[in-house]
Amino acid sequence: MQETEGGDDVNEGFMTKSTLNSWKKKVDLKRLKEVVRADLKPSGLTVIQLDLSLSLSLSLSVCVLSQKWMYGGLDSNVFLQYLAWVTYPVVLITFSAGFTQILAPQAVGSGIPEMKTILRGVVLKEYLTFKTFVAKVIGLTCALGSGMPLGKEGPFVHIASLCAALLSKFMSLFGGIYENESRNIEMLAAACAVGVGCCFAAPIGGVLFSIEVTSTFFAVRNYWRGFFAATFSAFIFRVLAVWNRDEETITALFKTRFRLDFPFDLQELPAFAVIGGFGGALFVYLNRLIVQFIRKQKAINRFLMKKRLLYPALVTLLVSTLTFPPGFGQFMAGKLTQKESLVTLLDNRTWAKQGIAEEFDYIGHSQAWKHPQVNVFVTLVLFIVMKFWMSALATTIPVPCGAFMPVFVIGAAFGRLVGESMAAWFPDGIHTDGTIYPIVPGGYAVVGAAALSGAVTHTVSTAVIVFELTGQISHILPVMIAVILANAVAQSLQPSLYDSIIRIKKLPYLPELGWGHHEYYNIRVEDIMVRDVRYITLNCCYRDLHNVLLTGHLKTLALVESAESMILLGSIERAQLQSLLSQQLGRPRRLQYIRERAAAEKKRLSVVSNPGSEDDSQRASQEVRFQVRVTAGGEMGCGGKHLWLFYICWMKWEEKQLDEQVNFNNCKIDPAPFQLVERTSLHKTHTIFSLLGLDHAYVTSIGRLIGVVSLKELRKAIEGSVTVKGVKVRPPLASFRDSGTSSSENEATELHKLWDRHKSMSLPREHTPSESDEKSQ
Amino acid sequence: MQETEGGDDVNEGFMTKSTLNSWKKKVDLKRLKEVVRADLKPSGLTVIQLDLSLSLSLSLSVCVLSQKWMYGGLDSNVFLQYLAWVTYPVVLITFSAGFTQILAPQAVGSGIPEMKTILRGVVLKEYLTFKTFVAKVIGLTCALGSGMPLGKEGPFVHIASLCAALLSKFMSLFGGIYENESRNIEMLAAACAVGVGCCFAAPIGGVLFSIEVTSTFFAVRNYWRGFFAATFSAFIFRVLAVWNRDEETITALFKTRFRLDFPFDLQELPAFAVIGGFGGALFVYLNRLIVQFIRKQKAINRFLMKKRLLYPALVTLLVSTLTFPPGFGQFMAGKLTQKESLVTLLDNRTWAKQGIAEEFDYIGHSQAWKHPQVNVFVTLVLFIVMKFWMSALATTIPVPCGAFMPVFVIGAAFGRLVGESMAAWFPDGIHTDGTIYPIVPGGYAVVGAAALSGAVTHTVSTAVIVFELTGQISHILPVMIAVILANAVAQSLQPSLYDSIIRIKKLPYLPELGWGHHEYYNIRVEDIMVRDVRYITLNCCYRDLHNVLLTGHLKTLALVESAESMILLGSIERAQLQSLLSQQLGRPRRLQYIRERAAAEKKRLSVVSNPGSEDDSQRASQEVRFQVRVTAGGEMGCGGKHLWLFYICWMKWEEKQLDEQVNFNNCKIDPAPFQLVERTSLHKTHTIFSLLGLDHAYVTSIGRLIGVVSLKELRKAIEGSVTVKGVKVRPPLASFRDSGTSSSENEATELHKLWDRHKSMSLPREHTPSESDEKSQ
Repeated sequence: MQETEGGDDVNEGFMTKSTLNSWKKKVDLKRLKEVVRADLKPSGLTVIQLDLSLSLSLSLSVCVLSQKWMYGGLDSNVFLQYLAWVTYPVVLITFSAGFTQILAPQAVGSGIPEMKTILRGVVLKEYLTFKTFVAKVIGLTCALGSGMPLGKEGPFVHIASLCAALLSKFMSLFGGIYENESRNIEMLAAACAVGVGCCFAAPIGGVLFSIEVTSTFFAVRNYWRGFFAATFSAFIFRVLAVWNRDEETITALFKTRFRLDFPFDLQELPAFAVIGGFGGALFVYLNRLIVQFIRKQKAINRFLMKKRLLYPALVTLLVSTLTFPPGFGQFMAGKLTQKESLVTLLDNRTWAKQGIAEEFDYIGHSQAWKHPQVNVFVTLVLFIVMKFWMSALATTIPVPCGAFMPVFVIGAAFGRLVGESMAAWFPDGIHTDGTIYPIVPGGYAVVGAAALSGAVTHTVSTAVIVFELTGQISHILPVMIAVILANAVAQSLQPSLYDSIIRIKKLPYLPELGWGHHEYYNIRVEDIMVRDVRYITLNCCYRDLHNVLLTGHLKTLALVESAESMILLGSIERAQLQSLLSQQLGRPRRLQYIRERAAAEKKRLSVVSNPGSEDDSQRASQEVRFQVRVTAGGEMGCGGKHLWLFYICWMKWEEKQLDEQVNFNNCKIDPAPFQLVERTSLHKTHTIFSLLGLDHAYVTSIGRLIGVVSLKELRKAIEGSVTVKGVKVRPPLASFRDSGTSSSENEATELHKLWDRHKSMSLPREHTPSESDEKSQ
Repeated sequence: MQETEGGDDVNEGFMTKSTLNSWKKKVDLKRLKEVVRADLKPSGLTVIQLDLSLSLSLSLSVCVLSQKWMYGGLDSNVFLQYLAWVTYPVVLITFSAGFTQILAPQAVGSGIPEMKTILRGVVLKEYLTFKTFVAKVIGLTCALGSGMPLGKEGPFVHIASLCAALLSKFMSLFGGIYENESRNIEMLAAACAVGVGCCFAAPIGGVLFSIEVTSTFFAVRNYWRGFFAATFSAFIFRVLAVWNRDEETITALFKTRFRLDFPFDLQELPAFAVIGGFGGALFVYLNRLIVQFIRKQKAINRFLMKKRLLYPALVTLLVSTLTFPPGFGQFMAGKLTQKESLVTLLDNRTWAKQGIAEEFDYIGHSQAWKHPQVNVFVTLVLFIVMKFWMSALATTIPVPCGAFMPVFVIGAAFGRLVGESMAAWFPDGIHTDGTIYPIVPGGYAVVGAAALSGAVTHTVSTAVIVFELTGQISHILPVMIAVILANAVAQSLQPSLYDSIIRIKKLPYLPELGWGHHEYYNIRVEDIMVRDVRYITLNCCYRDLHNVLLTGHLKTLALVESAESMILLGSIERAQLQSLLSQQLGRPRRLQYIRERAAAEKKRLSVVSNPGSEDDSQRASQEVRFQVRVTAGGEMGCGGKHLWLFYICWMKWEEKQLDEQVNFNNCKIDPAPFQLVERTSLHKTHTIFSLLGLDHAYVTSIGRLIGVVSLKELRKAIEGSVTVKGVKVRPPLASFRDSGTSSSENEATELHKLWDRHKSMSLPREHTPSESDEKSQ
């Protein structure tokens, strides 16, 4: 009954000193312990991560408690209270943003989009360094401590991956398998799988969620590793609990106690789920819109660029002003933290008939939802609407933060709203066939949370997370249906939040094929490939190399046998070719040439005038030094016939060097680049690209290089057909295929050509009569 | 209290008529409904499968009930009772075995090993036909109806895949995407994922289990499809339930009501799990031993081969004799079906202090475990031991059946045994730090079931299945730990049951890499590849083709540019080459040749003797016919100079034909076979093979073919190093690598060779001076 007191205080619009003090006392230790446990419970991968989680949770709790304390201690003056309420998050967020910005800007944001990209095989520099680790951990702690609607799921995935990467790097000092690159990718995949399991007490759902958001194809053996790590960390927690003589064992974080297996009627489900889906899509859209709006507004942008920390501070100020409990916050349960909101939303009782409900003293936070003047429905609607845009806005702040938890809470609130409406509509439950199904709004909240978070992230494993969080699995069917329907709606409207961020950040990505786009089976590689492939031949000269390097942008170049045969031999990285070229024409070679020339000159001079050889040699070396200065600075305009001659000589030398054949001996060649066939379907190409994490693949026809497909072309092809939905899109070049020249015929012709060429080469006299004639004459 | 009556009857060794009748009455409709629901609950993929499941369940229930009825009606005479008890399963199993044998022997067994092989890309003929479908469904129904310790999980995976395959085939009649092969593989993968979800009320666990046992790499988009299908079928069931005005909704099949989150002490867990692991490995070993024993014993084998149905009948007779309730069955709860056993084993109460426990009338089957003379521990031990070998034996019967459910029951019994022992040891619970943890043997049973079934199948998702089956998720940590530890033990001792069957059946497979075998990163493709590759050149003649086809066994042959360059151009299937050869030398060509010769002969004759041309032409056509007969039958010994000459001519023609260059124009060439590099690690090779479902891959070095790796070599390499555990095995050829000639040097040399060759080819006058000299002279 202590809590109803607190509730009355809220009714007065302010909190009295006594209530706050009692509340503070109650909170202090219990809360600290609770918060610590909540975060720590199933931490991850290794004990290291557990320690990290522990320290993170501790500092987090300290943050939250000190804000409460500051706010609580100043209850005599509303203005001072407001200052305390607002200053704290602003300072923390600004610090977090500044710290991250200075130490490692890569630590900003969720980290899931980046991990997804890295697991695709793309090397993102600086994303897995110790600096990023420190920035992420400290930045995340401050950001979460600020009480803004931010999540920690994504950052935990990133932190787990950072731990794995750093551990690998550390272990590789001792040699052994940790040096292996594919081994590292495997460890990263397992670490990602652990990430979310560390956030909630959800080892299974967490692992599945992480798999869904980071992988396209998942190795079952990593799945196994993820479960092992998640379970191990949960086990460690249990051991710690035994040591601490803590009676409570690992349990669900937000335990529900619904007595019904099917807490709502069949007919509501689809509508409910569809709204969840639209809500999810809207969230992703809104988030992207805000980012794009800020980017487009050049005036704002320039201003914000100059004062990088102003944007976070302004956003935080806005959000915390609106949630100020004695102000607007009283209409939207502003004083509750995310966790408290969730606990109250999943409450077993019905709020609409609150006075009547039994056992009302176990958690007092529900009182925050009840305002004396305002209906609970209004509070809920305000909460949903305000939190919706606040979360979408807050996740654009450049601090380490995720969006899962805010979305989860909004979903729960939405579900609670529907549930309460139903309960108000049918206060005695729904009668069907003589049985009464009482309405349980908490059940609606669970379904809503799973559906909205599933829709935003495009995953179905939120259903499993929900079971683990609530400790109840009996309502499995409605949750699964809602999640799947919400997913179907959201997927057809918007990319997932993570894919949206990937696009915004312009990371290399491969869009998902989506549902029921059958045209992917009809589009072929020959329709989308680039036919004008940049290549170098085995007997090319350095000039060709130079020309090829000047044009094009692909990271690798194809190596073919000759321009006529076009037989693909391998691929060479651009950097390798550049080093080859610089070896041939670079500083050392030039210096060497000059030295040689100087020596020759000297010889010539010494032949002309034998005496004064010492002086001569001195002059020669001076000359060399001078010439070097000239070549280094380009044409300096300082004339002299000698220099002019030398310049011409010099040019000739360069030309000669460029005309030499390239020696590939010291060059790293990928001797078996991935090859596709013209007739490979877009669907299969997509599968292969995502399976093997390819960046590009050559299209060959019986050894002959005929094209190249890179991620860019693939992306264009997929997104091009996605935009025109429902209609079976003809790929731009598909008509060529139908008009007589079928691919197999093409192939036969190709083969024929090759065969002819080959014949002529093995019987060279037919091919080179003029040459042999010349010789014989 | 009705049930305790029945229990007393058991105590007397027989059942009185009245009890049985009352039991029968109670059973009849309720049981039928229950059994139907149990099987039908979350059926799969489509409504078709639901209907199938319904009919299967119905017939199954009829089977079980009629046995009970026959057995019950004959209680006056033990011998007649025995006959009724035994005849029924023997007849059903024999029918099932015979029916399957006649209609489609491919329907025998679980089907998971075959599906795993098919999903790897191997085409297994006849495994996805309508015949197999019918045989599997009817055979499975009879086998399950017999009451033998057989499971239905594997067959359901197979049936779901059959549905998908047949549906695809049916839809492909209307054209469109269903004709696409990779689309079909995807549908199969989704169907497999649905399979197990149909068996229990376990949509999530079922999908995860199916993924674990059938895939090495899983596409996340199929995961999504699996959940959708499983949820859809559960939803359909719910709709049916509403139509039938059935109040009960979808719930857990074996609902538990444990009041403790952590039903046992920390210290027992590892020991418990290790025993589970050893048990699992033992089961797989025993199962394989029985199969191999029967195969090896040639005398037995020959006998059994002659009378195919004798083996199933004998095994069934043995098992059902031992479980006969008035006989030995009374000591091992023989009268309980698998489902009943499981329900009683997961019972909330403690059996060791049975008299005292409360609320004892809700299920009466627990009484079967209590024998007046024999301790419940003895009954449990007997049950475990007997069921263990019975299940291992029964799963070798050639009927459609799985082994998951029997193993699950044995695991539960084992867990119950441990739990009851603990309860007897600590009747007041375990005291720690002033708190009392009462022992809940049912909790031990849940953990045992998950651990043993996880160990046998090498999966961790049995933990999820257990949560869904029991409807309780609170004991998540002990279950996860036990499953993971049991897995670790079992995986290090034996392959999974399905892999074991794959090996017994000699299906093409790729062993898993297993845990912590780091040497895979050190072995390279060059150490294991076959260097003596069979190849054909672009300008080869038919004779070469003929010779190549006579030797070797690989399904495909490499096509290289020439024997000197060895540049890989593609691969050709053996069958294609055979058809090329037969086109050149086959019947139509021969007939044509004969006709041409005959025409030439005729012309010659008509030149010699102008008159009598009609007679001549008649003679010529006769000759042709005769010669055709001669060539068709080979040398027939009928001489004649004309014939002899013709034969020589004929031989010459054949030689000439063989010496002609092959025309590859009408030949289907795979223009981009998969290529590896010498330095690819075994680990990466394994990943690529299992990712892409390859059968073989060529090893190339800058375009040059230098070796081939097939599944066989890979298997040998992996299993070779697996046998020597703990020790870092040096691969047989690894020493070559270290001794000076590093691969990159090798590569450089290769490149050099190619370059030299190329130069000499593009400047032919250096190469062919003699030819040009000849010409000029």
